[in-house]
Amino acid sequence: MTLSHFASQIPPFHVMALLERAQQLEGQGRDVIHLEVGEPDFETPGPVLDAIHDAMSHGKTGYTPAAGLPALREAIAADYRNRFAAEVSPERIVVTPGASGALQLALAALINPGDGVLLCDPGYPCNRQFVRLVGGEPQPLVLDAQDHFSLSPQALLEAWQPSTRVAMVASPDNPTGNMLSLDTLQALAAGACEQGGILLVDEIYQGLCYTQPAASVLSRTDQVVVINSFSKYFCMTGWRLGWLVAPEPLVPALERLAQNLFLAPSTPAQYGALTALEESSLTILEQRHQLLARRRQCLLNGLAHLKLPVVSRADGAFYVYVDVSAHTDDSFAFCADLLEKAHIAMTPGLDFGEGHDHRRYVRLAYTCSESRLVEALHRLETYLESL
Amino acid sequence: MTLSHFASQIPPFHVMALLERAQQLEGQGRDVIHLEVGEPDFETPGPVLDAIHDAMSHGKTGYTPAAGLPALREAIAADYRNRFAAEVSPERIVVTPGASGALQLALAALINPGDGVLLCDPGYPCNRQFVRLVGGEPQPLVLDAQDHFSLSPQALLEAWQPSTRVAMVASPDNPTGNMLSLDTLQALAAGACEQGGILLVDEIYQGLCYTQPAASVLSRTDQVVVINSFSKYFCMTGWRLGWLVAPEPLVPALERLAQNLFLAPSTPAQYGALTALEESSLTILEQRHQLLARRRQCLLNGLAHLKLPVVSRADGAFYVYVDVSAHTDDSFAFCADLLEKAHIAMTPGLDFGEGHDHRRYVRLAYTCSESRLVEALHRLETYLESL
Repeated sequence: MTLSHFASQIPPFHVMALLERAQQLEGQGRDVIHLEVGEPDFETPGPVLDAIHDAMSHGKTGYTPAAGLPALREAIAADYRNRFAAEVSPERIVVTPGASGALQLALAALINPGDGVLLCDPGYPCNRQFVRLVGGEPQPLVLDAQDHFSLSPQALLEAWQPSTRVAMVASPDNPTGNMLSLDTLQALAAGACEQGGILLVDEIYQGLCYTQPAASVLSRTDQVVVINSFSKYFCMTGWRLGWLVAPEPLVPALERLAQNLFLAPSTPAQYGALTALEESSLTILEQRHQLLARRRQCLLNGLAHLKLPVVSRADGAFYVYVDVSAHTDDSFAFCADLLEKAHIAMTPGLDFGEGHDHRRYVRLAYTCSESRLVEALHRLETYLESL
Repeated sequence: MTLSHFASQIPPFHVMALLERAQQLEGQGRDVIHLEVGEPDFETPGPVLDAIHDAMSHGKTGYTPAAGLPALREAIAADYRNRFAAEVSPERIVVTPGASGALQLALAALINPGDGVLLCDPGYPCNRQFVRLVGGEPQPLVLDAQDHFSLSPQALLEAWQPSTRVAMVASPDNPTGNMLSLDTLQALAAGACEQGGILLVDEIYQGLCYTQPAASVLSRTDQVVVINSFSKYFCMTGWRLGWLVAPEPLVPALERLAQNLFLAPSTPAQYGALTALEESSLTILEQRHQLLARRRQCLLNGLAHLKLPVVSRADGAFYVYVDVSAHTDDSFAFCADLLEKAHIAMTPGLDFGEGHDHRRYVRLAYTCSESRLVEALHRLETYLESL
């Protein structure tokens, strides 16, 4: 019995080896500070939990329609109108098992074997596997450190190949935290359309932004596919709920795909999500957003003090992508040594693509409290001085 | 922008057109009896809901490991030992977003583009799409009505082609309710291995059986892949939780696949599942099982009275597959007319494959109360007399 080519080529996340070592150290009583975690450290908001409890107490534990509860699709559409000035009809929204499910649906609907998908490098490492799953060819769109790893419409067109059908960008981005302006996103979407393809925008960190207002490409064009999630801003990671917005002609096929591949997204999670979009939850989430903004500033100040350059302005998400090349020529080895000696866990650049000069970079997540960040910065200072 | 070949060839479920009409009729105040629903009409058991509430109140709303909570993998392993006399190490168990997720993982790990997967016809219609998603070729294994649509090791070997890598069977089966004996399953697994392939057994209706004890192929061999679910026996459909058991060498690749494609299964659902496997829940589920047994007998008696032959013994799940060819030469038209005139919804044979003589058959689910079944049988009698 042999593995499929697809399965056998999937690399492990390199941070996993570090995590395993971190757990060993913790088993020995060491206090490890985790700056590698891509998950908010906040629990799901109380009103959301109450709504879920209420739904499940009233027997709402069966299947919903494959594309999600009509009321949730309407609530998401209303949220686009209210918070992002985007007109999106509920019919264009498909609720999915996480943004992972949304990405899978989108690529299964658009990509034939051999079709190319442009993926930013650095970028979210799983995207490559979603492309390969459906037989597509990941085409690395290696971004330029000079441009702070930010994608320009010009760079998109230069990277576009005859086989390319989809280009994928994220705003806010993982790992850099970059946000693209609405003008840029609109130009990218138009550029992809002109080439006979389509732009796929990952907005899963929407709402987590610190230098400009939250935004959606959907306020500018409907000729895009957008994936989104209740995991990050809404703090519902473990509930596995996301959604997809697509141009209307794609939707019947997306629904048939969802019927076959997922049956339906989680029912209790959907009832929770309905409440997540209400004022009672949004107020709590906005407080957490402010907390993240403080942590970000604390981290940026500390890194500046340590003379560790941060890529771009780290506008959004909860990541900073840091250049450690003044201290190492191998950021993976740096992470391993830092964990061993200072008990700080970070994610090496290698996990975000081999096309960019990943040996220079590490990703830090400010998903722990400000006091832990301060402690991490102290330890980091001591460590760097010891080199 | 054009759809992928894969997406454009997915047919809608034919029962959906009937369901739409049923909803119209209900909107006009008609009382439609639903015998088409493949979902238990029982709510998630109280102890499971309590456990979920407890978990979410204690902040268990973040990601778990990709393969599931270690405690749940251990509990599933213990359940195999206790209820099915099967020794399965927890390391071989991967918890997934529904059995849909399990099937996707298994096929992604095993199938290269062009590889064949034998799928029973009649059988569960979504299986074809999971095979096509990864570029595999669904190879219909058309079962013989003379054998009650039950698969024999001989038939498996005759259908095996040079390109075949996986053969898939379900026990209990959808739509026929058939169960395969452990001897047959063991022989099927051995037959697939001898051909250099592997047997994939769908056990998602495990525990819902009426003519023989509940069983698992895993009590006989570990050279199989098994998919299972908390949806049916455990009445957790809307929570979207399933699992996969695979031979040990496949597991690291399955975990990497799960990391990339799903991140993790639903956390609260996993805490609920831990309790679903405990005595407090199993007692409730066994009472429901007995209720289903009574409904089944009621339905079988009624169909015998109406001289409507049932395929095989309908040993398990909550389905009977009924031959209506004495009254129609097109079971889809029969379903549509029955809905219109008697307000009963059934699923036409066409939804379970075009290889068998589907025009003769309809699937009835006994997922409604005994009194509704009695009412449906009355209406059906009147309808048949009117033909």
